[in-house]
Amino acid sequence: MNNFNNSKMNVDALFLGPKSENAVFFKEMMEYSVTEHMHWRSSYHPEDPDHITTVDRYAPEYRDTLYRTEGILNQLSSKLKSTSVPWFSPRYMGHMNADTLMVSNLAYVMAMMYNPNNCAQESSPTTTVLEIEAGLDLCNMFGYSVNQSWGHITSGGTVANYEGLWVARNLKSLPIAIAQHEKSQHLLIGKSEKELLNLPVAAVLELIDELKKLNTFEEVRELTARGTGVSLHTLGKLLVPQSKHYSWMKAMDILGLGQQNIVQLPVDTSYRTDVQKMRETVFSLIEQGEPILAVVAVVGTTETGAIDDVKAVIDLRRECEEQYGVSFYVHVDAAYAGYACAMFRDEDNQFIEYDALIHRYHQEGIFPQDVIWPKLDVYESFKALNQADSITVDPHKVGFIPYGAGAICMKDKRIVDLISYHAAYVFEDVQEKHHKLDKQHNVILGSSIMEGSKAGATAAAVWAAHRLVPLNLLGYGKVLAAGITTANWMIEKINQCKAFNIDGRKFTIFAMPDPDFHMINFMFRELGNPSLEKQNRLNKRLYELCSYAAGRTYSNDFLTSSTSLTYEEYGDNPLNLCRDANFTDSEWHNVQSVYVLRAAVMTHCLRDKQHFENYWGALIATFEEKLQQLVDEENKINHSNYKLASN
Amino acid sequence: MNNFNNSKMNVDALFLGPKSENAVFFKEMMEYSVTEHMHWRSSYHPEDPDHITTVDRYAPEYRDTLYRTEGILNQLSSKLKSTSVPWFSPRYMGHMNADTLMVSNLAYVMAMMYNPNNCAQESSPTTTVLEIEAGLDLCNMFGYSVNQSWGHITSGGTVANYEGLWVARNLKSLPIAIAQHEKSQHLLIGKSEKELLNLPVAAVLELIDELKKLNTFEEVRELTARGTGVSLHTLGKLLVPQSKHYSWMKAMDILGLGQQNIVQLPVDTSYRTDVQKMRETVFSLIEQGEPILAVVAVVGTTETGAIDDVKAVIDLRRECEEQYGVSFYVHVDAAYAGYACAMFRDEDNQFIEYDALIHRYHQEGIFPQDVIWPKLDVYESFKALNQADSITVDPHKVGFIPYGAGAICMKDKRIVDLISYHAAYVFEDVQEKHHKLDKQHNVILGSSIMEGSKAGATAAAVWAAHRLVPLNLLGYGKVLAAGITTANWMIEKINQCKAFNIDGRKFTIFAMPDPDFHMINFMFRELGNPSLEKQNRLNKRLYELCSYAAGRTYSNDFLTSSTSLTYEEYGDNPLNLCRDANFTDSEWHNVQSVYVLRAAVMTHCLRDKQHFENYWGALIATFEEKLQQLVDEENKINHSNYKLASN
Repeated sequence: MNNFNNSKMNVDALFLGPKSENAVFFKEMMEYSVTEHMHWRSSYHPEDPDHITTVDRYAPEYRDTLYRTEGILNQLSSKLKSTSVPWFSPRYMGHMNADTLMVSNLAYVMAMMYNPNNCAQESSPTTTVLEIEAGLDLCNMFGYSVNQSWGHITSGGTVANYEGLWVARNLKSLPIAIAQHEKSQHLLIGKSEKELLNLPVAAVLELIDELKKLNTFEEVRELTARGTGVSLHTLGKLLVPQSKHYSWMKAMDILGLGQQNIVQLPVDTSYRTDVQKMRETVFSLIEQGEPILAVVAVVGTTETGAIDDVKAVIDLRRECEEQYGVSFYVHVDAAYAGYACAMFRDEDNQFIEYDALIHRYHQEGIFPQDVIWPKLDVYESFKALNQADSITVDPHKVGFIPYGAGAICMKDKRIVDLISYHAAYVFEDVQEKHHKLDKQHNVILGSSIMEGSKAGATAAAVWAAHRLVPLNLLGYGKVLAAGITTANWMIEKINQCKAFNIDGRKFTIFAMPDPDFHMINFMFRELGNPSLEKQNRLNKRLYELCSYAAGRTYSNDFLTSSTSLTYEEYGDNPLNLCRDANFTDSEWHNVQSVYVLRAAVMTHCLRDKQHFENYWGALIATFEEKLQQLVDEENKINHSNYKLASN
Repeated sequence: MNNFNNSKMNVDALFLGPKSENAVFFKEMMEYSVTEHMHWRSSYHPEDPDHITTVDRYAPEYRDTLYRTEGILNQLSSKLKSTSVPWFSPRYMGHMNADTLMVSNLAYVMAMMYNPNNCAQESSPTTTVLEIEAGLDLCNMFGYSVNQSWGHITSGGTVANYEGLWVARNLKSLPIAIAQHEKSQHLLIGKSEKELLNLPVAAVLELIDELKKLNTFEEVRELTARGTGVSLHTLGKLLVPQSKHYSWMKAMDILGLGQQNIVQLPVDTSYRTDVQKMRETVFSLIEQGEPILAVVAVVGTTETGAIDDVKAVIDLRRECEEQYGVSFYVHVDAAYAGYACAMFRDEDNQFIEYDALIHRYHQEGIFPQDVIWPKLDVYESFKALNQADSITVDPHKVGFIPYGAGAICMKDKRIVDLISYHAAYVFEDVQEKHHKLDKQHNVILGSSIMEGSKAGATAAAVWAAHRLVPLNLLGYGKVLAAGITTANWMIEKINQCKAFNIDGRKFTIFAMPDPDFHMINFMFRELGNPSLEKQNRLNKRLYELCSYAAGRTYSNDFLTSSTSLTYEEYGDNPLNLCRDANFTDSEWHNVQSVYVLRAAVMTHCLRDKQHFENYWGALIATFEEKLQQLVDEENKINHSNYKLASN
């Protein structure tokens, strides 16, 4: 789909840049994007009479309205300038934000001028096609068959997760519905309810085809959870890691499944779902006769960037099918790290063998020699993605697209008929439809997805990004590698950093080693302080000093985010971190929470070692200042307490 | 909130215009929006080293990447130009689309450069505040108390409808949950299950306060549908008009309530919910002991723009409460016509008395003397909106904002705690939070709404529109009146139009009289044709000739949309239309469907009578051409059939 030689992509030329380095180009292209549309307007039936005359435009009301428009924009600009967060700068390392692709910003504006609505192709003849192309790009990246799979854009990862659970829920209830439908029940004759609730996904999809052949699919569909509500079925438990995003709690609420039906899977010392405990949980549910609605694996948790062992989930499912006749749906929440799947693919979209991959990374200069990424088990997780039933991935995170652009990919598009609101087609028709995409004009996305009206401009932004930055190691691979490299170097520097001496007090800094992706967690540590609570306060205050919380972000030298690793979410796994930081085990057991600074290192600007060294030098100075500020604050409080005491 | 004299707003100065009349202004402002941001970047720590040198930028890779960016934008521009729909032109009268406000397009771009994420204020310090302001603007327009209500932006009306049903569902299940909670059940002692399921909304909201005082709210909340799923409760039926948007079917599916629990309310001859039949349905459900989850009224149906009698729904609820101790939630789907509530409000946001309103319309020149709008019952519906529990309204429809911008307003913000994912505050705290809005920095919208990450730029676009175009009769009132006026004139002209004589065949055209808003339905009619089916084919073909379906919309002279009014959706009400068109009753009963051309007349360009007259003249010529084309096509087919027959 990309008719140019990938190797020529330059990462710096993709972004406006931290100093607006590409300002001239960007402005020219913006002018182009806007004027092209204006010409389109003024060339549309130029014979039409002018409704606005020169006289009209010199009327005071007319000019006033324009002046006010300008005034409101001026006001908005001051507001934005005062409080916005400088994502674009390498001085920002916090949430999953960085500079966004110029091409996507420009494509968004260009398409917005035409204001397409991707709810129905009639209202978006261009951008509905672009959305389907962009969705298939993602399916292709995950290794799904392009002819069989289906992907589309959502307003964000949260809605994508809802949609994944929605299809899983309706799918799980289909066999029960078939068993209740007189003309169809012969398809599942002799099956117990337990068996009905444990059919493999592929088998249920085959049943959809069978029902269509019988011409009973639509009737049966009305007997699934869609038609009857959740009340008639016990659809079982949703297994999600403790490290899950809170959207999963919302999802269970919204879909009527109830949060009580979530089973949280404990994580291991690397903050991934503990495979052994997951197996135990699954086997124990099987023993209790409790069906499993779905298992969710997270590829890139929001707190540590941990990448669950997707392969283990897929293998476990196979084992359950073979040993116990029990199956479940697998959804992967790869909102954060999903785009990293591009890093494993070559120019022909082949998933590269591990050794060859590492070799090519170094050969192509994608990673420097001192950075080895990924770990083998992370590699295996990405390789197994093509066996998940659906995957959430956020273009507005590591796709470097402006908000809001999430996406969901489904392995087998037949599943869509379980949630769609149009007459169901037999599978051949759907295939034919896709092949005839550019010839047919009435794809109604709104009837096959959760949302309705939606900006076609978002599709243009994602589509344009995928055209410019291929979804392989030479495209997104290069861009993502910049962040991973910087994250690795950061951790190395942090852990080698000598102590800061502030007014006689000594502070060290250290980072959790060896992250799966480019999320780093680090903390400051006062030497000689045995109290974890005091330690947490120290880091909380440092976070405040390095964030919006202590005033204008614009005047700040370094910006980060933070999180608490708690017993509730992570069990005793943060104990290791506490031990590394020389706290006693009992400190952890008392406090049950470690406050850490957290940064998704996404900047493309520090991939050159020398640039990074300079940056690090400046950062050390900033850290020293922040610590000084903190110590000064404490001294001031102590001093006033002293004064109070001595009065 | 608007510190300027409303009366000075000029409607033409709000839009780029059908000939890009405001091109120079728009381009200047676009340049301003973009360069302001660039200066913000380059002034952020200017002491930082340059990472991109002149040498870097002259590298072939760098230039190639920029060229490719340009190439992709060029490709996108051709695609958009080839197939986009010219919403901006008065030649387009179809879906709810027209030109969008310059200020909103510009505000979107300006904010997008900063890429705020309104999921959490930390990621959108400016635009989260703008979203809350914009939401309160809408609440204020609907007559909700600004201190008590709450509104926010959604990706579209579909999601807003889901959210309305979500709160209704969880609210309905709260009393049952209380009754199951040992420490709280005394609050509802002695109530039967029927009584529990029929508490008025206000009473349930008071219970939330009581639970908070008991400190048991969060525990009880986990026993509502949110925690246990829908399975434990019979929450009752959702009553929606037959004319409903299909998002209500999706909503019942997604929320686990089941489409089977929808009760469709028949519509009357004006395509509004039939009040008498609604009453009968409600009383019959009460008699059966079936709870009513919610009643949905539609303010502006998508097919005829009909405005349900909201007052009748509110009155009915009061009657049910007083007579039978039965109550239900009321949601209004005003996605289409919601912004028209601005038309009833004066500069002090007072709802104007009917006679005074009509007088002011004519006095201010908002409507010409020959247009009287609204009908009294439409007026009463808008007046009753402030008694609905929640309202969906789409800024991207009649708010003239680019996609995707929907919104939901809730009468009482305490309801949000039933769906929110943060610790519940006592009501005083929430109020205090709102008052301290600009001082506090951690509003997390994502934990109180359906969606998660979302574009802050959308909030900027809606906020800017509301600042420039006040939500009263002199702001949005003026803009909307332009469309309503044009719709009225169109209907008048259509119904007075003399027959078209095409090759000896005579065609008339006529429109459904007297719409509630600015949606018109019209059809062509061949004199002497007794067949409704043939009539439907005629209009379907005319639709094709006036739409994307017959080729490039750009080269088309007139563009419209269409719909079928069927027995399934409207019962026998379209019979009147058939009779007006001189079809026998039995034709209707056989075919049960009338195909009509449908147009939401939203253009601001034809509010001057002379402009309109010129437009109509051109339109008549276009209609004649289209009819000629259609007759030629038929002749060609007849001719070749004749040739085939004679061979």
